Parts: sequence; structure tokens; C-alpha cells
Amino acid sequence: MKPVCLVIGAGAGIGGTVGSRFAREGYHAVLCRRSDEDGLNRLVEGIRSEGGDATGYLLNAVQPDSIEDRIAAVEADIGPIRVVLYNLGSQVGDRSLETTSYKVFELGWRMATFGLFRTASAVCPRMVERGGGAILVTSSTAAVRGNKGQHSHAASMAGRRMLCQTLNAEFGPSGVHIVHILIDGAVDAPDTLGKMLGPEKYRALRETRGMEHDGLMLPEKIADTYVHLAHQHRSTWSNEIDLRSFNDMPWWNS
Amino acid sequence: MKPVCLVIGAGAGIGGTVGSRFAREGYHAVLCRRSDEDGLNRLVEGIRSEGGDATGYLLNAVQPDSIEDRIAAVEADIGPIRVVLYNLGSQVGDRSLETTSYKVFELGWRMATFGLFRTASAVCPRMVERGGGAILVTSSTAAVRGNKGQHSHAASMAGRRMLCQTLNAEFGPSGVHIVHILIDGAVDAPDTLGKMLGPEKYRALRETRGMEHDGLMLPEKIADTYVHLAHQHRSTWSNEIDLRSFNDMPWWNS
Amino acid sequence: MKPVCLVIGAGAGIGGTVGSRFAREGYHAVLCRRSDEDGLNRLVEGIRSEGGDATGYLLNAVQPDSIEDRIAAVEADIGPIRVVLYNLGSQVGDRSLETTSYKVFELGWRMATFGLFRTASAVCPRMVERGGGAILVTSSTAAVRGNKGQHSHAASMAGRRMLCQTLNAEFGPSGVHIVHILIDGAVDAPDTLGKMLGPEKYRALRETRGMEHDGLMLPEKIADTYVHLAHQHRSTWSNEIDLRSFNDMPWWNS
Amino acid sequence: MKPVCLVIGAGAGIGGTVGSRFAREGYHAVLCRRSDEDGLNRLVEGIRSEGGDATGYLLNAVQPDSIEDRIAAVEADIGPIRVVLYNLGSQVGDRSLETTSYKVFELGWRMATFGLFRTASAVCPRMVERGGGAILVTSSTAAVRGNKGQHSHAASMAGRRMLCQTLNAEFGPSGVHIVHILIDGAVDAPDTLGKMLGPEKYRALRETRGMEHDGLMLPEKIADTYVHLAHQHRSTWSNEIDLRSFNDMPWWNS
Repeated sequence: MKPVCLVIGAGAGIGGTVGSRFAREGYHAVLCRRSDEDGLNRLVEGIRSEGGDATGYLLNAVQPDSIEDRIAAVEADIGPIRVVLYNLGSQVGDRSLETTSYKVFELGWRMATFGLFRTASAVCPRMVERGGGAILVTSSTAAVRGNKGQHSHAASMAGRRMLCQTLNAEFGPSGVHIVHILIDGAVDAPDTLGKMLGPEKYRALRETRGMEHDGLMLPEKIADTYVHLAHQHRSTWSNEIDLRSFNDMPWWNS
Repeated sequence: MKPVCLVIGAGAGIGGTVGSRFAREGYHAVLCRRSDEDGLNRLVEGIRSEGGDATGYLLNAVQPDSIEDRIAAVEADIGPIRVVLYNLGSQVGDRSLETTSYKVFELGWRMATFGLFRTASAVCPRMVERGGGAILVTSSTAAVRGNKGQHSHAASMAGRRMLCQTLNAEFGPSGVHIVHILIDGAVDAPDTLGKMLGPEKYRALRETRGMEHDGLMLPEKIADTYVHLAHQHRSTWSNEIDLRSFNDMPWWNS
Repeated sequence: MKPVCLVIGAGAGIGGTVGSRFAREGYHAVLCRRSDEDGLNRLVEGIRSEGGDATGYLLNAVQPDSIEDRIAAVEADIGPIRVVLYNLGSQVGDRSLETTSYKVFELGWRMATFGLFRTASAVCPRMVERGGGAILVTSSTAAVRGNKGQHSHAASMAGRRMLCQTLNAEFGPSGVHIVHILIDGAVDAPDTLGKMLGPEKYRALRETRGMEHDGLMLPEKIADTYVHLAHQHRSTWSNEIDLRSFNDMPWWNS
Repeated sequence: MKPVCLVIGAGAGIGGTVGSRFAREGYHAVLCRRSDEDGLNRLVEGIRSEGGDATGYLLNAVQPDSIEDRIAAVEADIGPIRVVLYNLGSQVGDRSLETTSYKVFELGWRMATFGLFRTASAVCPRMVERGGGAILVTSSTAAVRGNKGQHSHAASMAGRRMLCQTLNAEFGPSGVHIVHILIDGAVDAPDTLGKMLGPEKYRALRETRGMEHDGLMLPEKIADTYVHLAHQHRSTWSNEIDLRSFNDMPWWNS
């Protein structure tokens, strides 16, 4: 039975691409996303057409029991989850305090912080029992500094980063590898960057930067590092790593 | 009319002591705490017996509208809030993931993160309208590193720290001073440390360390720095500061 | 005999102003700077005309024995050093790697890192013997992030920050209070900002920002916080603090 | 002609092992170390016996022109340097301030900070001209926090970390990849850990922890990550990463 790589937040950018890569590495990719069943099916078909194993599910991660039930079903029906990619963000664009409703603020926490807590609660005991596993968490600079208009995003991503540290402190010695991966730049992803910019701006940006195939962060190349991290020998684990394009300044530079 | 210093989390440690100090500096201290009406009354009477102004309220900060209504009432009935001390923590002791219920994890967020968001939502517009104010936020090392068993505490305090940064980015230029104050050590406070240790251990600890009046962090001395921060000239603001006893190693040392 | 406040780097900005303030607080201010004897004399006379005690010395801090001999002479002739303000920077403007000579790189280290090490080596044993003292270290964002063109500045200031941490770890429990004070903004100081910009730009900047008396960081107000830090009770020490103007974004914001 | 991987600090731990790995990946490994010509020859012979290319040199990195001349000679005689591994540390054990001589403090800076500056000054222009290259810098927790007795080590490693950031800010956009790799744990290396502990303690430690092949950090496994980092696509670079054994607590945990 193949080990499972469970992707929570499997859009056409990092989530779907990393899932496909794990399928190529011999995993059964289980791809979960909130909406766009057609897009989900395309990802699954893409993997299968390469000879890989994949299954897709629509999953509303903020709904009670959604993550827990999915994990239980995957373990029962598909196989043991060896790798989780927690890829849900909470970016809602820049919003002033006044226009950040309590609901939006809480939603950010439910997606970025509480969702990981629920995932870990469901999956860590299983991984411990099997002697190991990896939880890769995609993160952003909002986890380490709070910019204007980022109330919900920064609070929820920072909470998530510290949750990664407490999870590692408890489960690292049992072989569960938690990695906080800070994506510090624009990813060449139609589902997120594309939607944020709109089709014209996105095409223009890709033409000026993406044409060189390295101005934007390429999901295929990001996947190289995710796979490497998931397979690091346990004597040599990374818990925090940053990623950015060579021609972008890191977040700490002015 | 005296300016108001509103303390959310006014126990017998930092909250009550800092509130009393602000009363001595000419503020009307509005002290809010969840329970122990007798303790609250003692704090209020203590301030009044010194000739200061104080009012006390029981306040359940995680209840909807509790903070918002209290702020509105204070502004209407007592005076303009010049300083807020947000002093609620989310420490629940060390708990493994398994024994950290969803409810406990969420409660930590409601107290440490969402409560500050609600407070800021209610008070920042008023402060901006008046040209300024200060929000002092008591914090702990859980905001900057996640130790074992601290899932709820670390996630919620880290979220709060980044929220302080986003609030500062939006409201600093309008004169609202947000300060994240990291308390890195044991405070000589009967309501928290005393209850955690129990009366005997607490007395023993005070005898070995507190008798010298500087092994434990003294709330009266902590108050000196809180008052200083609230009154820094706006050309020279601190946004992040740490505090610890001279004979404690900082959190970053091994 | 008055306690001594020794200022290394006593220009007309932070150094001279903080020195004057300590004189007003009852210290004998010993002001040291590399050059401009007239400027130095003006500072000393200014303090004396207010009834304070001050002595000035020209001091080339990168010259062997200069700091050590001055400290020994001050202790012998003037009084016990209670507070040191180490105020030397290593900013040499933005320089590419190619135009940063080995000499410049080393000079930065000699001023910003090694100079503090020498100062601490000379003064810490005396402070320990007397049961305490304070070393205030003025720092900059280069200590926590390396911007383009800042090879010498960033390497030397970061070295200094970690040296503050090792000094605190060794001498804090003996009562020597080390504070790393990160100045995150432009200071209204003719000797540094004024010279960097030239008289016209400096005047223009002061007119647009300084006229409001809070767009630039005012040395007099910075001094309030320095004095507070030097006098924090030892149960409640800060080791790291940042300072900036209310309308400047912190270094961590983009 | 094979690309060159230049290792400065090629002992029997990380330096030699990573060098050997790069040789297996098709590089000519140029191994430099201060002493132990026999050990150096064994490393070189080991690589050659596997069919790889390697050359070894004794190099005193703190001696003027030593690094610069070696780089020039390698470029002239062996080939273009594609990867540099800067692997010199400045750990001298715990020393109080009193027993840290000026000479020791300066030596730390010459090895850990200035040596990298000299290396970068010699190699970056060549890499820029060729459109890219990678500089991997082995680091330690002393770069991010200063423990007791670590005056020389912490000041020099922190300076080095910020130097990595300034180098990246200048040379990243030209394709030179600078990575600061924080080794947060004990490495199974006879030349460093072995000498520090002495043969008996080292054997005992390996028996209790190393026998499991993952209690100590294994240089062979560390090399996996170094090679991955050096070959990351330029759209997806890491600049800071940490590494530790699964059963060691990260430095930030108490």
C-alpha cells in the first residue's frame, strides 16, 4: 500500500503541484480543496495520466468535523498518511480595522490556526503510533511581522507558527517532523495570484517576470524543496525555512 | 475630567498594581476582572483610600459584547479612555495535544487574541478622534517561542503579538501607541503565581527569592516601566520591550 | 562623590543630550568623543551652566588602550562609573562590497563591536565589585537585519547585539544591567543626520518633519527613556527595547 | 571542466563530508583546512578512490592573503568555483569575560566574520561574471542568541549572519545564492565533537545516541541538505534554514 500525502488546500499553485510531485515520488496524493470541483478533477486526472495515484475531495476546512472525518476516512480507505501538507492561508487582502469584521478575523483563525490544530490532533497520534510522519506547513511573512491591513492574516499565521513550534516540541522526539515553510514572494499560481490580480495584470506580470521563469516563484521548484524536507533524515531536520526568488528582497530588507 | 486608564485583567499582580499606579498619576482607574468581587473591591478601596479615583467591574471578556459595552459605558459615564492595559493571559499550564480540547484551544484565542482585537476595535476609533492614546499589552515568552505543552498559550499569544504590529502599523501614525511588553519571568503575584504554586510553595519561593525583593519581578517596579511607556513622547515610542529579573536568564539563553 | 555617567560617543545628538540629562539627575557626566573639541566644550559648558558636573575628553576609541586608560583615569580622578552609554556607531553610508575595503570593514568592527568588548572588559569588574551598574548601548536596525550596502555596519552592529546578550548572561546576576537600545529612525541630530544630509536638506527635513517636534526622533525625549532604563529596579530589567517615531513604520514593516 | 566546490574548513565532520558529497555530484572538491595534513590527504584519497576529483590544501584562513591567493589559484589552475562552503567556526569553549583575551576575541572575528568577508570579496565578482554561484555558510545558535561564556563566538557568528544578509541583498539578484545554515545540535564529527569530549566520552555518547544513527547529527545526512540548497532553482531560494536532530529541542525551547 502506498503511503498517503494529504494536501489540505490543493489549488493550482503550491498545493496541487506539491501533491502531484509526491504522487511521482510514490505516494497516493489525496487532494482536498474547498471548491472548484472541475479544477480538483483536473489535478487528479493529471496525476493519474502520469501513472500516479490520486484522489480528490471537496473539503470545507472550517466546518466542524470536516478535517477529522476526512483523515479518518483516508486512513481507513486509502492508506496511512505519511505526509500532510497544510496549505490553507488566511490572506483576505488589506483591510483596515474598521472593515475587518469579527467574522473575518475569526475566519482567519479558523483556517490558519485552528485548522492546523485540528489536523494535528487527528493525525499526530496516528503518526506517533507508526513511528513517524511529516507535517509541512506553508506560511507567509505575516507569520513573522504584521503589516498594515493584515490584522486577521498576521494574527492567524503567527499563531500557526508558534503552534508548529509547540507541536514539534511534543512530537518531534516521536518522529513527527513539523516544518514551517515561509513563502516570501509571489508564487506563479493562477488560483491565488491570478485571481488577486485579475487575468490581465497576471498575464502582464508573468510576461515581465515569469517569462524568465524565475521572477515569480515556480510551484514546480517549490515542490523540490517540499519533497526534500519531507524526506530529511531524522538526525537532520529543518523546522523553519524560508523561500523566495533570487531577485526579490527578503522581507527583512527595507 | 480625569483621563481613564482601563485595565482588562485587573488581578492582584500586574493588572491591579499598574492600575493603582495610574490612579496615582492622575488617572481614573477602571479595573475589570472576571471574578472575585471582594478582591476587586479591595483594589478599588485601596486606590480611593490614597485619594485616587477608581471604579471596578466584573467582566467576562470572552462573552460577546462584554468588552464593547464596558468601553462604551466607561466613555459615556466616567471619561475618555487614555490608556488601556490589556492584561489577560491564556496560560492554562502544560497540556499535551491530546489533553488540549478544542474548547481550551479556542478559549485561549478568545482571551489572548480576539479579546485584544475587540478591545482595539472599540477603543482605537475613539483614540484616533482624540488624537492619541496608549494600549499596553502584557505578554509572555509564549508569544515568541512555543514550548512543549503550550499549544493554546503560544498560538494565542503569538497571534496577539502580530496583532499588536498590525494595529501599530495602522494606528501609530494617528497617535495611538501600542506596546507589546514581554514579561519574561515569575511575577510576585498572589493571584497567579500564588494560585499556581499553592500557598506553601509560594511562601517558600518568596522566602528564598522574594525576600531580597528582586528575585521575583515586583509588580510595583513593573508599574514604573508601564507608566513610562504610556507617557513616552510620540517622537520616541517603544513598540516592543522585554522585562525580567536581573538574576533570571532571558528566554533565549539555554 | 557623584556617580559618573561615562558617554563614549558624545556628539550633539543622543550622546551629548543623554549625558546632559544624566548630569541633571545628579551624575557627573564624562563626555568622550573623537574630534571637535569646540563642540565638546560647548556640551560641557552647557551642563555646567545649569549647575551640573561634567568633564570632556577627546578619545579615539579605536586606538589601543584609549578606552581602558580613560576608564581607569575617570575612576581614579572623578568617581565610580555607575552608567556607561556606549554610543559609537559604525555607519559609513551604503557601500558595495567592492568599495568596502578590508580597512573599512575592520574599522566598523573596531568601533561597534570590539570597542564595546574593551569597554566591558574594563568596566564590568569594577561594577561587579560595587554590586551593580548599567551599560546602555545605542543600536540600529543593522543589528537585526542586513540591508544592501551595509556590510561593515550590519556585521559589526549584529556582533555587538550578541555581545550584549553574552555580557548580560555573565554579569546580569551580579547587578550589571546591559540594555540594547535599537534606534529605528532618524534622530534630530546636527552632528550625524545634519552632516549626512548637508545643511540645506537637513533644514528642509526639519521644516517638514521636525517643526512638528515629533517627526524626527528628539534626543531630549530619547534621553527620558535612557534614564528610565538605567534606573529600572533590578527585579524588572529590560535587555532589549526599540524606539521610533510614531509616524515611522518599524523596520519589520514593508 | 568540472565546477569547483571550495570548502574552507574541511575537517572530518561537515566540511569533509559535504565536500566528498559534492565530488560525487560531479564537482571537483577543493578541500582546505588549517592543519593535519594526514587527515586532509585521507579525505582527498577517499574521494579519488570513489572516482571523484579532489585537491587538498593547508590554509591558515586568518593569515593575510591566504584565502584570496587560494581562490585565485584554484580559479586559474583547477576551474571556476561554483560552490563555496564556508565552514570555519569560532567556538573556543565557554570563557568568562576576564579570560577572553583581546586576541581571542579578535581571532573569533577573523575566523568567523572577516574570513567570510574576504572570501566573498574574492569570489562574488567571479560568480557574478559567470551569472551565478552558491555560498553555503555553516552557522550555529551563537549567531542568534548569546549564551554565557560565548563572547567571542556569539559576536563573531552574529556578525557573520548579518553579513550573509548584506551579501544576499547585493548579490542575490545577480544569481549568487547565500545560505545561512544554522546547525542546532551536536554533529557526529570526530575532529570537533570528538576532540571536545575526548575519546572515551565521545565513544560513550555515540553508543548511547549515535548507535541509533540519529541521536547525533550525521554529516552524511547534513550533506543531503547542503547539496539540495546549492542546487535550488533560483526562483525558490532559501536564505536561512535550521537543522537539528529530531530528538533535540530547538534552541528557542527552554
